[in-house]
Amino acid sequence: MSYKVAVLGATGMVGQEMLRVLEAQAFPVATLVPLASGSGETGRTVHFRGRPHAVLGTDGFDYRDVDLVLASAGEEISAREAPRAAAASAIVVDNTAHFRMHADVPLVIPEINGHAVRDHHGIIANPNCSTAIVLMAVAPLRALGGLARLVVSTYQSASGAGKEAVKELDSQMAAHLEGRTPEHRVFHAPLAGNVLPRIGRLLPDGRTSEEAKMEEEARKILAQPELAVTCTCVRVPVIVGHSASVNLTFDRAVAPGDVAAVLREAPGVHVVAEPDGPTPRDAAGSDDVLVGRIRADRSHPYGLDLWVSGDNLRKGAALNAVQIADILHREGRIGVSTRSA
Amino acid sequence: MSYKVAVLGATGMVGQEMLRVLEAQAFPVATLVPLASGSGETGRTVHFRGRPHAVLGTDGFDYRDVDLVLASAGEEISAREAPRAAAASAIVVDNTAHFRMHADVPLVIPEINGHAVRDHHGIIANPNCSTAIVLMAVAPLRALGGLARLVVSTYQSASGAGKEAVKELDSQMAAHLEGRTPEHRVFHAPLAGNVLPRIGRLLPDGRTSEEAKMEEEARKILAQPELAVTCTCVRVPVIVGHSASVNLTFDRAVAPGDVAAVLREAPGVHVVAEPDGPTPRDAAGSDDVLVGRIRADRSHPYGLDLWVSGDNLRKGAALNAVQIADILHREGRIGVSTRSA
Repeated sequence: MSYKVAVLGATGMVGQEMLRVLEAQAFPVATLVPLASGSGETGRTVHFRGRPHAVLGTDGFDYRDVDLVLASAGEEISAREAPRAAAASAIVVDNTAHFRMHADVPLVIPEINGHAVRDHHGIIANPNCSTAIVLMAVAPLRALGGLARLVVSTYQSASGAGKEAVKELDSQMAAHLEGRTPEHRVFHAPLAGNVLPRIGRLLPDGRTSEEAKMEEEARKILAQPELAVTCTCVRVPVIVGHSASVNLTFDRAVAPGDVAAVLREAPGVHVVAEPDGPTPRDAAGSDDVLVGRIRADRSHPYGLDLWVSGDNLRKGAALNAVQIADILHREGRIGVSTRSA
Repeated sequence: MSYKVAVLGATGMVGQEMLRVLEAQAFPVATLVPLASGSGETGRTVHFRGRPHAVLGTDGFDYRDVDLVLASAGEEISAREAPRAAAASAIVVDNTAHFRMHADVPLVIPEINGHAVRDHHGIIANPNCSTAIVLMAVAPLRALGGLARLVVSTYQSASGAGKEAVKELDSQMAAHLEGRTPEHRVFHAPLAGNVLPRIGRLLPDGRTSEEAKMEEEARKILAQPELAVTCTCVRVPVIVGHSASVNLTFDRAVAPGDVAAVLREAPGVHVVAEPDGPTPRDAAGSDDVLVGRIRADRSHPYGLDLWVSGDNLRKGAALNAVQIADILHREGRIGVSTRSA
C-alpha cells in the first residue's frame, strides 16, 4: 500500500516539518499534495523527496482520491476543510485545537494511547505541542503509582507561534543588540530579552486557552477525566524546543531512581544523565523527548519534580501526526478503497 | 546623622545598582568608599552623586571608621570581609548567600520581616534575588489564610549571574543572528535561544543550590520552619528581571479577587490589571515587584496560581539592601559611635 497524502499548511513550520518527517520515516507516500489556504502561499513550491511540488489552494480542492490529510494550517481552516476531507473518505490527522476535545475525535499520542486511533470517524486529533511533550514524560510513570496531580510551568519557543513569530524574534534580537526598542506584531509584547506569561487568549476563569489545552488534553489522553492539573504557559525567546517544569503528585511515594529507570525504558523518551538537565537547544532536531532533573519533591511525601524538553515541531506536532498515520497504515486503516500507487 | 558607607563589589552589576539606589533614596551618605577585591577592579573609578570615586582594594582596608558596608562581591569575599568589618563595628548588609542561613544573622525583606534587623550581630543578610521577588507576592497573602505549600518555577535573567554573563548573552545573540554557534564560558551552555534548567551547583539530593536557597530562605523569612516549598530554578535569555510561576496551597479556600485586593494594598507590590501579566521587561527598572495572572488553581480546592516579575538588581538585591540600611538608620542603629559628617 502506498497513499495519496495531502499536507494542509505545507508552507508553514509544522507543514515543512511534516514533509521532512514523512521522508525520514519512509512513510509510503505515492503522491504528495501540498495544500495551503492563504493566497500568498498557493502557487509556491515545496520540496519532497528532492522534487518540487506546487502548493495548491484549498478553495474547491477535491479530496475524493486523497487517502490521508495531515493538517496544520490553523483552527479555522481545519474546521472548514477536515469535515470536507473526511466526507470524501480521507482520514484527517489534525494538528489544530479545533477537534481535540470532540467526543467522537480520538486525541492520540501513539506511545500513550495509540489504540484510540481505531475509534476515529474520519478525524484524529494531534495534541497541543506542550501537552505532547509533557505527557511523554508523565504517562509512563503511572507504572509506579496512580497520578493524582500535575503542576506544570512551561517554557515555550517562538516556533510554536509559526514562522512569522520566529522572524520577529530574530529581528527583535537584532534591535536589542543595536540598542533599538524591539518592535512586535505577532507577539503582544517584545519576546527578545523577555518572557511572556500569556499564550493564547484569556478565558473568563483567568486561565489562558493554552493552559486549558494542557489541562483538558492531559485528562483525555491519559483517560483520567478527574486528573487534577494546573498549568502556567509562558513564551520564552527560544527558536525551537518547548520545555516544562513538571511537579507530580502520586498516590504513593515514588523514588526518583525508579522514575529514571521507567523513563529509560519508555519509547520516545531519552533520560539525560548529565546533572545540568536537557535544554530546548538539546531537544531541537531530536525525535525523543528529553527528561532530566528528576528528583524528590521535598514539599510532599508523594511528590516528584522533573524537567522535560522536546522539539515542538517534531514530537509536539509533525512527528506525532506521522506516527498516528503510521499506526493507521500498519493496521490497514488507510485507503480501504485500496487506492495503491 | 550621615554615614561613611562602603560598597563592596562597587563595579559589579549589583554594586552599581546600590550606588544608584543610594542616590535615588537620598540615603544619608557622608562619605562613599567603593571597594573591590579583584586586582582588575581596584583603581577604577565609579561615580556617585556626579563625582568620581576611586575604587579601593579590600586587602588591608581598615573598616574602623566605616559605619555601613553594603556587600555584593561574592560569597568568598563576604566570608572574609564581613566579619572583619563587623569586628570593626561596621554593620554589614550582605547580598551573598554566605551568612543567610546562619542562626545569628537576620535574613530580611523589610516589607515582610523588617523587625528582624534588630537581632543583628554586625551582619544582616539580603535574600537571594528570586526569593525576594517571590516572597514579596506571597507573604502578604497570609492575611487570607495559612500558607501550606509553594511550588515555584523561576525564569531568571542573565544579570543575576553578573555583568560578564550579560556580555556573554549579547555576544551569543549576535552569533545566533550571524548563524554561528554561540560560545559560552560564564554559563555552562549557550543561553541565547535557550533556557538552562540548572542554576548554581547540584546538591546530592538532586536539587540545585539555587533551589535550596529559595526553599530555605522562604522558611526563614516567613518564620515558618515547616513550610513546604519545592522549586525549579531556570535561567532564561533575559537581561534584567526575574520572574516566577508560583503555585500556592493555603489551609482554606482563597478567592483570586481577595488575593488581588490584598496585593494592591501591599507595599512594594504592583498588581498588573492587564490580562497579559507582567513581564521581566516591564519589571526592569521598577522598584515594585509586579504581580499578575492571579487565578484559582482548579487542581486543588485551596490552590492559587500567580505570576510575578521583579527587577533582580533592585528588589532582588540593591534596593532591598538599602531598605535594610534605611531601617537601621531610622531606628538610630548605625554609627552608634556618632560619627557624623
